[in-house]
Amino acid sequence: MNDEQHSADALPPVRVALLGSTGSIGVQTLDVIAQHPGRFQVVALAAARSADLLAEQSDRFKPQLVCLSEGEMDGALSGQQGLIESAVHPDLDLVVVSTTGSAGWDPTLAAIIAGKQVALANKEALVMAGGIIAVEARRRGVVLRPVDSEHSAIWQCIQGEGVGDSYLERPRDVRRLLLTASGGPFRNSTQAELASVTPAQALAHPTWTMGAKVTIDSATLMNKGLEVIEAHWLFDMPYDRLAVVVHPQSIVHSMVEFEDGSLKAQLGIPDMRVPIQYALAYPRHLPNARLPRMDWSAALTLEFGPPDLERFPCLRLALEAGRLGGTFPAVLSTADEVAVAAFVRGDIGFMDIPSLVERALEAHDPVMEPDLEVVRRIGAETRRRVSEWVHLSTQATT
Amino acid sequence: MNDEQHSADALPPVRVALLGSTGSIGVQTLDVIAQHPGRFQVVALAAARSADLLAEQSDRFKPQLVCLSEGEMDGALSGQQGLIESAVHPDLDLVVVSTTGSAGWDPTLAAIIAGKQVALANKEALVMAGGIIAVEARRRGVVLRPVDSEHSAIWQCIQGEGVGDSYLERPRDVRRLLLTASGGPFRNSTQAELASVTPAQALAHPTWTMGAKVTIDSATLMNKGLEVIEAHWLFDMPYDRLAVVVHPQSIVHSMVEFEDGSLKAQLGIPDMRVPIQYALAYPRHLPNARLPRMDWSAALTLEFGPPDLERFPCLRLALEAGRLGGTFPAVLSTADEVAVAAFVRGDIGFMDIPSLVERALEAHDPVMEPDLEVVRRIGAETRRRVSEWVHLSTQATT
Repeated sequence: MNDEQHSADALPPVRVALLGSTGSIGVQTLDVIAQHPGRFQVVALAAARSADLLAEQSDRFKPQLVCLSEGEMDGALSGQQGLIESAVHPDLDLVVVSTTGSAGWDPTLAAIIAGKQVALANKEALVMAGGIIAVEARRRGVVLRPVDSEHSAIWQCIQGEGVGDSYLERPRDVRRLLLTASGGPFRNSTQAELASVTPAQALAHPTWTMGAKVTIDSATLMNKGLEVIEAHWLFDMPYDRLAVVVHPQSIVHSMVEFEDGSLKAQLGIPDMRVPIQYALAYPRHLPNARLPRMDWSAALTLEFGPPDLERFPCLRLALEAGRLGGTFPAVLSTADEVAVAAFVRGDIGFMDIPSLVERALEAHDPVMEPDLEVVRRIGAETRRRVSEWVHLSTQATT
Repeated sequence: MNDEQHSADALPPVRVALLGSTGSIGVQTLDVIAQHPGRFQVVALAAARSADLLAEQSDRFKPQLVCLSEGEMDGALSGQQGLIESAVHPDLDLVVVSTTGSAGWDPTLAAIIAGKQVALANKEALVMAGGIIAVEARRRGVVLRPVDSEHSAIWQCIQGEGVGDSYLERPRDVRRLLLTASGGPFRNSTQAELASVTPAQALAHPTWTMGAKVTIDSATLMNKGLEVIEAHWLFDMPYDRLAVVVHPQSIVHSMVEFEDGSLKAQLGIPDMRVPIQYALAYPRHLPNARLPRMDWSAALTLEFGPPDLERFPCLRLALEAGRLGGTFPAVLSTADEVAVAAFVRGDIGFMDIPSLVERALEAHDPVMEPDLEVVRRIGAETRRRVSEWVHLSTQATT
């Protein structure tokens, strides 16, 4: 059932490519699109390996292009080239990038260069290659629409505050962006308790349901550090104007503080489909009966407080890597990925995650203006190096 | 000390008339203007009776016109005609109306008709005559800039959400406006406790420092009811899209709920100079070192809950009067003014305030499309009628 009369607007549909259609964000994106018949048209669907689900989605949404980038499928494009073709098709208005890892970087750049609108749900793209992708987008006048709830919140709050109508120009009179963090399940734990956290404890996230990597990153606050780096690139904000506020209820998704002391916050029941729909329908807040609604007839308490960088060194390391710039954030992100996987396997302790990340940053010989090739190479080197450290420490203890 | 380099902007100063310059809002408006040398130019200052302070302000800000509307002063205009002349001077861009009572209505209308921008801090203008003043402003494309913290909050939150760049067009995709209310000092009192509230108890407002009338109105929630009526006119919102949320900390100044479940809130330390400066500097959030700043390094708890219309019948009566329309809100406002004065004098009890207001509404024979003359006549009739009821009840008990 559609919640609006799209036909009344007499606008042509927005033609969408969805890269990463079988992942969590991809599936939720199609859920949102299905709620607005006539407003969106799915032109391309791409997935890495989930052929069955991709075939189902293709039957339902009838795209012109289908791509299984890391497999084979009848009538489908394949490989990195297939992804890129799906991102630059001439009948496209908007490319939603919800692939994981580095597979989405080249298609994202290609879409930007082809002048497409881009909705970005791939964290690595901005953390590891923000200096390439965000800078290229700004240079070409392409708005990168954020899909993360925090960045969407900031984007919603700065509407109408810019000189133009997009945030390609830094919004005027902004003193700080304040990203909220749930604080994770251990926000009240002591340093000693943190050292003995088990994977099972860390995988129980208080609010959002997410994959293992981002759940652990939420528990270490690395996730918030990565989001600060993303915000730096998305909103062209220096690091001294980016701050983190712990907010356990996850109702306020982020805030913008202005020069006159006024703040704007965006809030709501956590549901990824809200920022997804906003990225698709920007600048509209379209009605959608499937989206949750705050109940203001019930009592509600919202708490806020500062993050503790001593107990949560991952956040400190992310801020440092962001400030250092160049390839440091790529090393941070890759080292964290390897360390989190090792923690989930039980090979290292919870507080070994920041230790390994710090060691990787200290050992790094940076490149200050890398291209995608250099970023990938440094990512691969970091992965080998940190995996080796994990391997040695495992052998040492067995 | 100025906090910005206005000269760098190379904009001509905004030329301001300030009606009601010696009241609380007027004095704070000049405080804000003094912080931004070169950005604002005071062209006219008007007060009712405070000749000494008006003369001081005139010495400092050197306006072209000075008006003492209810007194005599060398070289100053006087009377209602003087106020109107101060509002339509050809060298004016913006008229700030912070007079109390009905004296500001004709100058406001005259400023709108003369095509001036208008910043409105006179509550009665919209509550009693919103159907005249706000409708005329909308018809002529004049934005009424709200000075109240709640309405300023909503105005800030809908920036960029309209079809045009002002809220003359109702902003798109808005489901509801949520006005926050501190709840007053008796938000947790029982019905029996409310009946025995003394003027001294009611005059101790938890957050804002205000005059007696608005402090009592905050304790009865009548103030929030009047603000709902103002919001109805300012934002062209039907009453079923206006709601009140109790928020004792008064940090969130109001919220806008969109059709996709997303909300925007404006927040900050309560200080009237923030909405005053925004109304002057719109759409800028200019730096001003005198304005307070939230301290996010400290723990903060914000509570929200629904208002209780049974214990606070003034809010229910205001919503009913607003829905009924015509001259009902004028009767509500005037009856409340008389009743609050009687309560402060000790002539009636706290819960007699809603009783008198309800009785006045029940006795009222409405005019559905009044002009200012009719509104004034009905105001005067209501004043006489409710004063008489107070008088009779005082005699009955002595």
